[in-house]
Amino acid sequence: MNEKGKTITAAVLVIGDEILSGRTKDRNVGYIAEYLTNIGIELREARVVPDIEKEIVAALNALRGRYTYVFTTGGIGPTHDDITADSVAKAFGVPIDEDPRALAMMMERYQPGDLTPARRRMARIPAGADLIENPISKAPGFRLGNVIVMAGVPNIMQAMFDAAAKDLETGVKIIAETIEAGGIPEGRYGSALAAIAAGHPEVSIGSYPSFQDGRFRNQIVVRGKEPEKIAAARAAVGAMLASFSEYDRPL
Amino acid sequence: MNEKGKTITAAVLVIGDEILSGRTKDRNVGYIAEYLTNIGIELREARVVPDIEKEIVAALNALRGRYTYVFTTGGIGPTHDDITADSVAKAFGVPIDEDPRALAMMMERYQPGDLTPARRRMARIPAGADLIENPISKAPGFRLGNVIVMAGVPNIMQAMFDAAAKDLETGVKIIAETIEAGGIPEGRYGSALAAIAAGHPEVSIGSYPSFQDGRFRNQIVVRGKEPEKIAAARAAVGAMLASFSEYDRPL
Repeated sequence: MNEKGKTITAAVLVIGDEILSGRTKDRNVGYIAEYLTNIGIELREARVVPDIEKEIVAALNALRGRYTYVFTTGGIGPTHDDITADSVAKAFGVPIDEDPRALAMMMERYQPGDLTPARRRMARIPAGADLIENPISKAPGFRLGNVIVMAGVPNIMQAMFDAAAKDLETGVKIIAETIEAGGIPEGRYGSALAAIAAGHPEVSIGSYPSFQDGRFRNQIVVRGKEPEKIAAARAAVGAMLASFSEYDRPL
Repeated sequence: MNEKGKTITAAVLVIGDEILSGRTKDRNVGYIAEYLTNIGIELREARVVPDIEKEIVAALNALRGRYTYVFTTGGIGPTHDDITADSVAKAFGVPIDEDPRALAMMMERYQPGDLTPARRRMARIPAGADLIENPISKAPGFRLGNVIVMAGVPNIMQAMFDAAAKDLETGVKIIAETIEAGGIPEGRYGSALAAIAAGHPEVSIGSYPSFQDGRFRNQIVVRGKEPEKIAAARAAVGAMLASFSEYDRPL
């Protein structure tokens, strides 16, 4: 796909008042994050902005200049609050109009008499964009330059993501290995882990607590691109944890 | 709390590699969004950034200058990857050191011999900050200026949020009313809804589809601060939807 070792980066831009009001709980960032990690693209930032054109344009222009790809979710439906396509056109400074290719895709679902003015809004695509197929409800997403525009409804977004992913440049996949620290407190192993992290600069090491039933349970994650470097760090973490034999630790 | 009609705004800054890798699915943005809406604070933006100091500092400075409050989650634990407190100090240009008040709170949980160097990291608080109580695991959050710094573990974050919320200035609560459009397609009512939205500029009207079992189900939400304006828009939407008697519509 590309020269070995190249880093491909991405940002997600979630567009929608309903996320910021708390009415709808976003599930797309987590899905996209996991998907990108699995195909060797590093998600570096995510933002949520309201349905306000200048906010969308500003965020798009900040992110698309900085990362290899920007994935947007939301705001491409048929109602007046769906302003993502127009905002993308404005961010790129290109015209937007009804796209015959998009209309043709939509006609697989609609009868001619069903093509209301509101639905025709979904065929408005910025000039120069490639369409992204929507196998579920037909109205397409699109890609313009490095910006991939998708629906907000999770299963439609996921279907569009599958379609768009085929054309993405990918890098070396980051490998993540999880080591159970279980009931060993972070505050006990923190200093030793910091020393291991300092001694293994080619990997990144994180410590992730969760809290249930009045107790912390901790996991340490070693992430990197080189298997032998990860194995060395993992061995060091394992040996360090084994020294805390007085605490519960699931295998 | 404040002069009537004043708008209080906020942003959320989620800090953590684990969210961007997809390993951990964020639940804090949705929780904070709903909470803020309920107390009359408008969440205007959310961002997720990695555990990299310059990224955290840049996002903090962008957001704290723009919104009444910034709420951060994550990065205040005892391990080397917990760099939020130092990043906040850097963003504000103030020193950071071990805070005797924070240590005293932590000693409610720890024996003196348990106060490892890693745990002492959690007592590092930027100069001038007020502490935020942590009834669960004691190591406090803090507030510096308009920035409220909380843990990433959801139930600890929620407890800190309860403590911090007491001192927040709040505005007029936004009222949101949901009207079931059920099986009426958005593409059918989109134009009529746009006309209603244009005729009721004092409220904001959104249309929110979900997709299950091969069908869309739609809801229309009218949001605003003035009950009589909301009632008028709601009545217009209801009358408009009633004209589509050929579609299923739950009561």
